[in-house]
Amino acid sequence: MNGLKIDENVIRYIIGNPINTDAVILDTNKIKTDRSYSLKYLDIDEDGNLNYYMSDNDIIYGLGENVRGLNKRGWIYESFCTDEYSHTPNKRSLYGAHNFFVVHGKENFGIFIDSPSKVIFDIGYTDHNKIKITCENQNYGLYIIEGNSLNDIVKEFRMLIGESYIPPKWALGYGQSRWGYGTETEAREVIRKFKENDIPLEMLYLDIDYMERFKDFTVDRTAFPSFEGLVDDCMDEGVKVIPIIDAGIKVEEGYPIYEEGVEGGYFCTDKDGDPFVTAVWPGKVHLPDFLNSRARKWFGEKYKILTDKGIEGFWNDMNEPALFYSDKGLESAFKRAEEIKKENIDVYSYFELKDNFNKLANSIDDYKSIYHNVDGELINHYDVHNLYGLNMTKATYEGLENIDENKRFLLFSRASSVGMHRYGGMWTGDSFSWWEHIELTMKMLPALNMCGFMFIGSDTGGFAGDTTSDLLIRWNQLSLFTPLYRNHTSRWSRSQEPYAFDEGTTKIIKNIIRFRYSLIPYLYSELMKCIKNNDLYFKPLTFEYEDEFSKEVEDQLILGNSLMIAPMYKQNSKGRYIYLPEKMLLCKLNHEGKLLFEVCNEGSKFFHCLLEETIFFVRKNRILPLVESENKVKDLSLKELNLIAFVDKKAEYTLYDDDGITKECKKNKFNLVKVVIEKISNKYELKIEKAENTALKKINVVIYDLEGRKETILREL
Amino acid sequence: MNGLKIDENVIRYIIGNPINTDAVILDTNKIKTDRSYSLKYLDIDEDGNLNYYMSDNDIIYGLGENVRGLNKRGWIYESFCTDEYSHTPNKRSLYGAHNFFVVHGKENFGIFIDSPSKVIFDIGYTDHNKIKITCENQNYGLYIIEGNSLNDIVKEFRMLIGESYIPPKWALGYGQSRWGYGTETEAREVIRKFKENDIPLEMLYLDIDYMERFKDFTVDRTAFPSFEGLVDDCMDEGVKVIPIIDAGIKVEEGYPIYEEGVEGGYFCTDKDGDPFVTAVWPGKVHLPDFLNSRARKWFGEKYKILTDKGIEGFWNDMNEPALFYSDKGLESAFKRAEEIKKENIDVYSYFELKDNFNKLANSIDDYKSIYHNVDGELINHYDVHNLYGLNMTKATYEGLENIDENKRFLLFSRASSVGMHRYGGMWTGDSFSWWEHIELTMKMLPALNMCGFMFIGSDTGGFAGDTTSDLLIRWNQLSLFTPLYRNHTSRWSRSQEPYAFDEGTTKIIKNIIRFRYSLIPYLYSELMKCIKNNDLYFKPLTFEYEDEFSKEVEDQLILGNSLMIAPMYKQNSKGRYIYLPEKMLLCKLNHEGKLLFEVCNEGSKFFHCLLEETIFFVRKNRILPLVESENKVKDLSLKELNLIAFVDKKAEYTLYDDDGITKECKKNKFNLVKVVIEKISNKYELKIEKAENTALKKINVVIYDLEGRKETILREL
Repeated sequence: MNGLKIDENVIRYIIGNPINTDAVILDTNKIKTDRSYSLKYLDIDEDGNLNYYMSDNDIIYGLGENVRGLNKRGWIYESFCTDEYSHTPNKRSLYGAHNFFVVHGKENFGIFIDSPSKVIFDIGYTDHNKIKITCENQNYGLYIIEGNSLNDIVKEFRMLIGESYIPPKWALGYGQSRWGYGTETEAREVIRKFKENDIPLEMLYLDIDYMERFKDFTVDRTAFPSFEGLVDDCMDEGVKVIPIIDAGIKVEEGYPIYEEGVEGGYFCTDKDGDPFVTAVWPGKVHLPDFLNSRARKWFGEKYKILTDKGIEGFWNDMNEPALFYSDKGLESAFKRAEEIKKENIDVYSYFELKDNFNKLANSIDDYKSIYHNVDGELINHYDVHNLYGLNMTKATYEGLENIDENKRFLLFSRASSVGMHRYGGMWTGDSFSWWEHIELTMKMLPALNMCGFMFIGSDTGGFAGDTTSDLLIRWNQLSLFTPLYRNHTSRWSRSQEPYAFDEGTTKIIKNIIRFRYSLIPYLYSELMKCIKNNDLYFKPLTFEYEDEFSKEVEDQLILGNSLMIAPMYKQNSKGRYIYLPEKMLLCKLNHEGKLLFEVCNEGSKFFHCLLEETIFFVRKNRILPLVESENKVKDLSLKELNLIAFVDKKAEYTLYDDDGITKECKKNKFNLVKVVIEKISNKYELKIEKAENTALKKINVVIYDLEGRKETILREL
Repeated sequence: MNGLKIDENVIRYIIGNPINTDAVILDTNKIKTDRSYSLKYLDIDEDGNLNYYMSDNDIIYGLGENVRGLNKRGWIYESFCTDEYSHTPNKRSLYGAHNFFVVHGKENFGIFIDSPSKVIFDIGYTDHNKIKITCENQNYGLYIIEGNSLNDIVKEFRMLIGESYIPPKWALGYGQSRWGYGTETEAREVIRKFKENDIPLEMLYLDIDYMERFKDFTVDRTAFPSFEGLVDDCMDEGVKVIPIIDAGIKVEEGYPIYEEGVEGGYFCTDKDGDPFVTAVWPGKVHLPDFLNSRARKWFGEKYKILTDKGIEGFWNDMNEPALFYSDKGLESAFKRAEEIKKENIDVYSYFELKDNFNKLANSIDDYKSIYHNVDGELINHYDVHNLYGLNMTKATYEGLENIDENKRFLLFSRASSVGMHRYGGMWTGDSFSWWEHIELTMKMLPALNMCGFMFIGSDTGGFAGDTTSDLLIRWNQLSLFTPLYRNHTSRWSRSQEPYAFDEGTTKIIKNIIRFRYSLIPYLYSELMKCIKNNDLYFKPLTFEYEDEFSKEVEDQLILGNSLMIAPMYKQNSKGRYIYLPEKMLLCKLNHEGKLLFEVCNEGSKFFHCLLEETIFFVRKNRILPLVESENKVKDLSLKELNLIAFVDKKAEYTLYDDDGITKECKKNKFNLVKVVIEKISNKYELKIEKAENTALKKINVVIYDLEGRKETILREL
């Protein structure tokens, strides 16, 4: 197998005749055709599997949204977008297909499998020290990516796949959601309760409840008689209403979207060319053929129905695509049940009976019966399964771009594959209200960043099952740091709004959310710089620290330039062990919402952290900018900055900001403030460089040195 | 509500007119009737719930086999024996009903709810600082138990409920199991492989595969043509065959057990007095009425069919009882499916369809349709549900006692409630091959001990799902310490015998199992002393150490008199944080199976522990006895003892031993060796007191002092 260098550190190998997945968008004119390269690092066996032999200490990072650790060793993962609601460690696929990972050890490099079909990553599952990659479809691109560091390797990959989706700045505010805000009255009650409790609320998400019998781009006028009034009233309160859009279109005469779709030939078909019938929330549906550019255009335009009502953001769901059943599947399940009924049911027919209807969902047979029309070419869905969610969100993105090309809309999706990161963010799907899922979320975050997914977050408090007040608090203490900060739960779960428990809980969560708003300028600055520079917002410690022990750490993350986080994820614990690879400044948000500081030595230690306390760290020679908290992102003022600095010799921080709502930022028009704090002959000097149009008028700096001595500098500009 | 003191530290309150559950067996003649006591610690609300108000730092230990932490705060548990195969944190019931817990905090006391029906323990789930106990059936006994320490409280409770089941000593050997050893050939192959790899094997467990169409007390002669030959050949190899027995009896004309049961009226009935039909592995079955003493006697006698073939142990399964479906339930499920078929299926009917057959299993309606005949009185099963497993195992125990009253048989059960601990051990049921389930197992162990379940263990490697070699190794490193040490998995899982992976894995697990045999004299000694003295074999740290930090520790346990264990339960980790409340002696079993020692200071530290290493600790002023490892328990010789001692001033250890096979131990005839090591004027003195008939001829002592200085004493007797 021979490859070509397509960039200084990237060799691309083409196996078979792959279709274009929209993942890699690097200008191929740049391909360096000096010579061809034989397969590096890997060997390929007679069955076409790619093999790599790990040494005992090799770490494998990546594979995006998946179960298990930061280090993916010791399990087998399948890239095959799956509506998998229970993220237990025996699962192999979740909603995304994220075929990039890096090997960190005796050799350091990245691998990306550019395939729209199922890829199996056996990372030491069959053989403890062997990686085996199996591409079901032997037409794919293989990228071997090198670099001087883990960061460089990832950066190189990110350059291949293009700039990530940029959310509006307000999307970093706090959002409340629930499958089950079933009426306008309930929705208004949520708004009222947030106001009554003086808890910041930026977005109210609506799940499928708002639609008329789950039909996209409709409103249930019984439950939401004045949907437009709700949107307007929310707008008056500074709250955006963010509705869900599902992939399937209800089969119903008279429903315009259905009729247009049939007429325009915009739906996926069966092998005979008839629209394929499957079923999701509305009952029987057709699936828009998002791989078809005409269908994408058509579907994208539909969003205007809702933007015309004042909607500025959407979440795309069920786009793996999730299938509840097909007519064919259902029929044969009923038939089999009939047969079993006549038998004396024994153990195996009992299991079959139980699974008979369960197995209807997301059946491979159904996926293999669906066809796409890609520019006239009929392609079986199974072969391009992982592109469906990507192309739905691409349709939305392009549709919204047509509605207002300079406006940033909020957009995120459940299903995804590499490439979709350019069109929207994503959330980690239907987590459970389990402590383990705080931990799991934490582990997904850097792996998602590696694939370009920057606007990400989880269902704070857990989606399925019943949360508890302590779990909700601890989960908020993690979500506080994720770009997407949303509390969402299921129709079948107990309420979990910040005010759903006792007063004490409300107060604690309110403190966390209020602190989030103080932190948004930093989080937004880091998010935007990471998008611009193809950097990671969340990183394992090893990406920044080269000591041996950092390799062991699975439950702490570097957040942007300045912070390290170490979330609490054990019930009833009053603290946890944290490893500091260097001296750091502990920041503790206490029960009064006040931030306390303490210089901590490097090494491992048990840090106390009661339920009402949130802790995180400022790294050595780094600066954290904070602002006065407000109830809305738009009200956050950058006139006055509070800098928390932990400085030995010299620290600098560049604060990025922009208008937050237009795409001007793409043209590199943004406001910067650069702050440098340097210790010169035992005295701190503060230098400030600011761009012309910056609002900044005042800077309050609190500097801690390595011995914990505190100094303050106030500077008016 | 008024109660009576039934012992110095125990007040019993009787609510309504409870039936006798067989849990508390303390001689009621001892009841101190000096005066009546009002309800202590708790209040009772108008709905009859018992409430306790916790302070922030109160810890709740207990509730036996259940999900979540050592500290049970923050969840709601239901005592209702359930065949729940997936032990995720959202579950409320597993197989056992263990209604005892202790409050440790501003007040210290124990509560036992003596009820055969569903009891709901809301431990800070609804209200973070409130315990609410709801007894569905308002006829129960409430015991409030006090004591000077946590150990005393538990001891007091254990005195109420009577002495725990005593296994044969050989039952502490290593056992191999699998649902899916489907033929005699496969079973023999397992024996051969263990021999070939020179791995100790004491027991070969047979799951339902050995029976003829899953009929109790039959043998499938096609798959196991010479079952008796297999048992004999195993015996020659020193391996005991341990078959499973299920609760349900197949409905089949000509099957003697079925016919006898019908004729004798030994089966549970429906409301009209006809044998109740439900279905489990064999298809349709009747349930023996274990609550009926005649039926118990009849069923117990059946075990003779297998003991006559040389069988010396059993595991009782499916005795919650698990119900797959009933005729009535199945009929209505089929009917509902038919109706749904005719509808345009929408979201809710889709969920219903999926659940329609799933919900057949263990349905409350079915439980409510079953009746027991308790000495002529017809009792609805639902009201006494939690007694079924107990009484099945009581039937077995008494049956085996009739077969040989002085012989100890191996016996353990899946379902249980307090009282069953006197008749058999138990295992923790169908765990998954998840790292989380090593941790969960660890947390169940002391809680089970508190309820008298001493002979306990888990399915090493995990039952459901696919294990990995590293998970299997780490799980063995925990099971090494549990009295019941069995590797068991499901028919649908990949193989997980110690030799099922690469050579390196085999070697590591072999080292662990071989070390187990060195440790058995200690483990057996501790198990027996704990049974005799109503002590805990596994304890949370707080039961021994009073410092604040021990309260935080959820993943370390005290094992008997001398050891502290801190199992590894995170994938890819090369060590873990461990807290030492005092100086301890680290023991590390290395990759060569050699034991290395290091004195460690008190406090928290990260301890390195590679996959091939097993670590544990000898406590200060304690002694660990070891012997030369052998392939069988019977070959372990107590002629020569190797003592590992960590001594500041004085340490003593009493080694219990007996014949291991008879019930003579119940009459207090056992062999003791007491060793005292004392530092007198900077020199260690060794004193040995031994009972007359002790085999002991030689003692090799290795003593470490607090500074790590090592001294050895060899003593021939």
